[in-house]
Amino acid sequence: MNSFGKVFRVSVFGESHGSAIGVLIDGCPPGIKLSPDDFMQDLSRRRSGAKGTTPRSETDTPDILSGVFNGITTGAPLMLMTRNSDRRPGDYDEFRNIPRPGHADYTAAVKYSGFADMRGSGHFSGRITWGLVAAGVIAKIILQPSLVKAKLISAGGIDDIEKAVSNALSEGDSIGGIIECRISDPHKALGEPFFYPVESAISHAVFAIPAVKGIEFGSGFRAASMKGSEHNDSFVDETGKTLTNNAGGINGGITNGNEIVFRVAVKPTSSIAVKQQTFDFGRKEMTWLNVKGRHDTCIALRAPVIVEAAAAIALADLLMIDRAIHGSRG
Amino acid sequence: MNSFGKVFRVSVFGESHGSAIGVLIDGCPPGIKLSPDDFMQDLSRRRSGAKGTTPRSETDTPDILSGVFNGITTGAPLMLMTRNSDRRPGDYDEFRNIPRPGHADYTAAVKYSGFADMRGSGHFSGRITWGLVAAGVIAKIILQPSLVKAKLISAGGIDDIEKAVSNALSEGDSIGGIIECRISDPHKALGEPFFYPVESAISHAVFAIPAVKGIEFGSGFRAASMKGSEHNDSFVDETGKTLTNNAGGINGGITNGNEIVFRVAVKPTSSIAVKQQTFDFGRKEMTWLNVKGRHDTCIALRAPVIVEAAAAIALADLLMIDRAIHGSRG
Amino acid sequence: MNSFGKVFRVSVFGESHGSAIGVLIDGCPPGIKLSPDDFMQDLSRRRSGAKGTTPRSETDTPDILSGVFNGITTGAPLMLMTRNSDRRPGDYDEFRNIPRPGHADYTAAVKYSGFADMRGSGHFSGRITWGLVAAGVIAKIILQPSLVKAKLISAGGIDDIEKAVSNALSEGDSIGGIIECRISDPHKALGEPFFYPVESAISHAVFAIPAVKGIEFGSGFRAASMKGSEHNDSFVDETGKTLTNNAGGINGGITNGNEIVFRVAVKPTSSIAVKQQTFDFGRKEMTWLNVKGRHDTCIALRAPVIVEAAAAIALADLLMIDRAIHGSRG
Amino acid sequence: MNSFGKVFRVSVFGESHGSAIGVLIDGCPPGIKLSPDDFMQDLSRRRSGAKGTTPRSETDTPDILSGVFNGITTGAPLMLMTRNSDRRPGDYDEFRNIPRPGHADYTAAVKYSGFADMRGSGHFSGRITWGLVAAGVIAKIILQPSLVKAKLISAGGIDDIEKAVSNALSEGDSIGGIIECRISDPHKALGEPFFYPVESAISHAVFAIPAVKGIEFGSGFRAASMKGSEHNDSFVDETGKTLTNNAGGINGGITNGNEIVFRVAVKPTSSIAVKQQTFDFGRKEMTWLNVKGRHDTCIALRAPVIVEAAAAIALADLLMIDRAIHGSRG
Repeated sequence: MNSFGKVFRVSVFGESHGSAIGVLIDGCPPGIKLSPDDFMQDLSRRRSGAKGTTPRSETDTPDILSGVFNGITTGAPLMLMTRNSDRRPGDYDEFRNIPRPGHADYTAAVKYSGFADMRGSGHFSGRITWGLVAAGVIAKIILQPSLVKAKLISAGGIDDIEKAVSNALSEGDSIGGIIECRISDPHKALGEPFFYPVESAISHAVFAIPAVKGIEFGSGFRAASMKGSEHNDSFVDETGKTLTNNAGGINGGITNGNEIVFRVAVKPTSSIAVKQQTFDFGRKEMTWLNVKGRHDTCIALRAPVIVEAAAAIALADLLMIDRAIHGSRG
Repeated sequence: MNSFGKVFRVSVFGESHGSAIGVLIDGCPPGIKLSPDDFMQDLSRRRSGAKGTTPRSETDTPDILSGVFNGITTGAPLMLMTRNSDRRPGDYDEFRNIPRPGHADYTAAVKYSGFADMRGSGHFSGRITWGLVAAGVIAKIILQPSLVKAKLISAGGIDDIEKAVSNALSEGDSIGGIIECRISDPHKALGEPFFYPVESAISHAVFAIPAVKGIEFGSGFRAASMKGSEHNDSFVDETGKTLTNNAGGINGGITNGNEIVFRVAVKPTSSIAVKQQTFDFGRKEMTWLNVKGRHDTCIALRAPVIVEAAAAIALADLLMIDRAIHGSRG
Repeated sequence: MNSFGKVFRVSVFGESHGSAIGVLIDGCPPGIKLSPDDFMQDLSRRRSGAKGTTPRSETDTPDILSGVFNGITTGAPLMLMTRNSDRRPGDYDEFRNIPRPGHADYTAAVKYSGFADMRGSGHFSGRITWGLVAAGVIAKIILQPSLVKAKLISAGGIDDIEKAVSNALSEGDSIGGIIECRISDPHKALGEPFFYPVESAISHAVFAIPAVKGIEFGSGFRAASMKGSEHNDSFVDETGKTLTNNAGGINGGITNGNEIVFRVAVKPTSSIAVKQQTFDFGRKEMTWLNVKGRHDTCIALRAPVIVEAAAAIALADLLMIDRAIHGSRG
Repeated sequence: MNSFGKVFRVSVFGESHGSAIGVLIDGCPPGIKLSPDDFMQDLSRRRSGAKGTTPRSETDTPDILSGVFNGITTGAPLMLMTRNSDRRPGDYDEFRNIPRPGHADYTAAVKYSGFADMRGSGHFSGRITWGLVAAGVIAKIILQPSLVKAKLISAGGIDDIEKAVSNALSEGDSIGGIIECRISDPHKALGEPFFYPVESAISHAVFAIPAVKGIEFGSGFRAASMKGSEHNDSFVDETGKTLTNNAGGINGGITNGNEIVFRVAVKPTSSIAVKQQTFDFGRKEMTWLNVKGRHDTCIALRAPVIVEAAAAIALADLLMIDRAIHGSRG
């Protein structure tokens, strides 16, 4: 279940403090120019380094281990990998008995009967999104000339994101944020009713990103307060352009050619410097927990490029499925 | 792509004014007592009949055509079907050139190169959710003793749902609403990182429901304005119970045993009595459109049972996957 | 697991003596002319009526319940069904305690914990291949101008098939046979290494047919006795035509444009008039079994059209997958 | 399409002369003791070194890059990889215009529009089966106490395999062979009708092995010449044991608890020292081809462990699916 996509298929692997993380990509067309450099812009947006992001240092450069010959994709599976260099297993040892609130420590222990690698959240770490971003780079190429762009539009409930981060940092606390993603010049006719509409595909991929709590398309939750006469988007010309875009570019689960728009809610980072009271499963009593180690104040700062990747992967898969059934369009 | 689920697999078929609609269910365990009566409570919640719902009359009773012998599931695929009796194709003929705003008329025409059955939205009709609800009945049995319950918590932006509907009805307009779904006594350890966490599975299924615009789990979009110290749910005892439930019962994509909580935004019904200006693709000019026929004022009134079904189907699939890999759990 | 295909997806349902049998087809392109008549030729080849085939009479005409509008496929899922009219449950009641040798009675009872519908082999009946043949009709249209043709080339070990059947009939016994299938004018470049080569796709579909015991492509088992210098097929022109066709039209799992050739071994019908000794699981002792009812002397007589269907479905799926990744070819 | 399995999911990657080959395994249960040493026995059976096998020297030791912590599987995806050390790209350069008879050179060029990595057959190389064998080691552990054993039972049409190989070696030619695989003490009730019976699952996996031309279960092709009264296996006791085993341990696609038996036909190695006449696609004329480089005289010598792996992977997947739907049995 560690794969996404029916034709363009992305499988991630690795643990935060294991020897390597990476991604296997199947269904990538041959003939795409591809070098490690092509990944660096998106990968460094994920790593960030800005105030409020974790200071962990990793080079993150991808090794392309298969599927590329002479700098061009061959049509065979692509294996992209990077070694973990900055491994600090010691930071996390004490959390076996005292699972950190908001983290997957407790559920991982239950699900995997105590065998999960708990170091730095193991396979549940945000670090695993490296593979998602790497696959996203390829998906974006496949989707051209469509352009997938996401940005953080608020943090901690306010628009001044820098201020919100500074405040939280000074308090040793963390904050969440809202990311908006827009896909301009999208392919028309993507999406498969009944069970693979655009919203299903994108939300499936986006909720794989740790810390995502919600997603809405077009008017989203605001639609619940609207009237039909306000919400309906009138067509204005024969290209299918609409006057408003409450639909977020999607009707009946299928892209209508207008900009695809969705927003994603990201929760505040679970690791905080502030002390928290929680249960000690070893001693069977409440205790105070002090989470040490390096953390993001606002994980949402690094998430836009991951959201882009998730959306691009979902749309690339839908594009291929549409092509499978209907042939290459116009 | 008309199927959902990896092991418990649900495939719907049919058109609003075709001869029948139904659902094929694969992966249903043998030994479940099942008669047509078992479906009627949920199916009638979908049909409604209350003020603000469409007056279309269908008996909706399911024919169980395979997979059940002597009133008990056999382990073979279940085919559940109902005939469409109240078919009025004439109502919709004029919308070929003038696709209705908010509907799938335009995208269906583009995607299917003009061959789509457009009568009453065809395969895009809300009527197709009959099969989803029928499959949901079985999924709920599989999930026992977990209980899946959804309700409409606001409509048109206000809590007094009856008043909101009356107002919209009198204006010939429509309204949206917000549905909250709670799964009590959920199985622990459901959900598969990286690409089939609980949120991905449920949102994938829920966005297959026409008119859904957003979904959020636990604190949802509110999380974006919260601090980590507020958001983190402290564990309070060795069963994994938490003091708060901002996580909505899910950590790292895996159920932690606390109540699963999510909310869904439903847009206002696209068909309204109010006149709308839109594009005439035949005459290539703007025109005024007057949508006749029977419509729901507030489609969200009928949606809770469909949301329950989508969630139950997703969780039943996750339950079976967990069992596949980890065996039956204590 | 009752579905085959990744994009062109075929799901069968029904039991031999249930109320209906049928097939749900997803991924069928819109715009294909389709009426019940189009299915009759292949469906009657499956029913046969020749000497050595079962005298059960069923009209077998398909009801097209969805996915077709005005005689043309719409792109929505196709539901094809036929009612079982000639149901004789009484014939089979005694075999609960004494599972018939060669049949699925024993394994069905074990797998489904006693809940399986055992009437006429239930979901294990050859009758379920009705849906396979119906789906095959559509797959053959999708594959045009390729032509998929199978025939019985030997029965009971001899070429004179009529004589072999007569002999077996007179002895109250049954015989097996070998079917050869040839796909002329095949699409080039079908098949996906590593795990969906042409042979994997076709064999997966063909072994779903009850009574199939083996499959071989091109030179097949004879290849094991050959030398490389005999076996290698030399290319003779720039279309990729080869001098010999030991490869059966497939190199490295991918079609090379030469005729695809494979053979299928079908075992003798398990139901025979001859008395058989076997175990009585109720009385826990050996017993003599006398299988009454209507049976095929040589099930292989009716199987060629089913083999064609299985091959066509597999190739249609591969064609769509190839198109998904590589676009429409030349 | 580079993955096999629905729950226990195996994806291979790499090229013969690329930087690495490997396998990603999803759905592996946690708690399995696993070290690189556990793979060496099976991996060295694949490498061989005996007379008649290729002299290419690779250490082949697997790097376990994820999914194992402290020597025990964690439940997260397993990435197993080995570097290619003995790379000789030069050997194969001349075959771009003159595709080697029996190889995938021609089809790879057509399918991947000229972008395929052709060095040493690239992704089509037998070397890619390294990943299959590695995954097979894990599958065999999952299947315990079942034992999966395959051996070469004939080569070049005779039982004296050593002699057959010597003869072919001396002629600069190659030979095929037949491998028999037996799974003793198999789990009962594995296999899913209609489309995932045991034979479909195993044949799907086995035909992914390069050079396999046929497969037969139990009596196999011999069944076509048999009578029902000979072929039917009588049950002899209440464990389901049968007197004969023409069924190969499978009734109606489901294991009956008797030994699973199947045979696989392997063609002679395509690369031979003997000169071959074939088409030069560059000069558009027939030519004589002299394939240099290192080759196996009888690839079937190394294939038994790969056949075991394919069977074990297929059965492990079926075991998990059965468990998903029916829970842990007895």
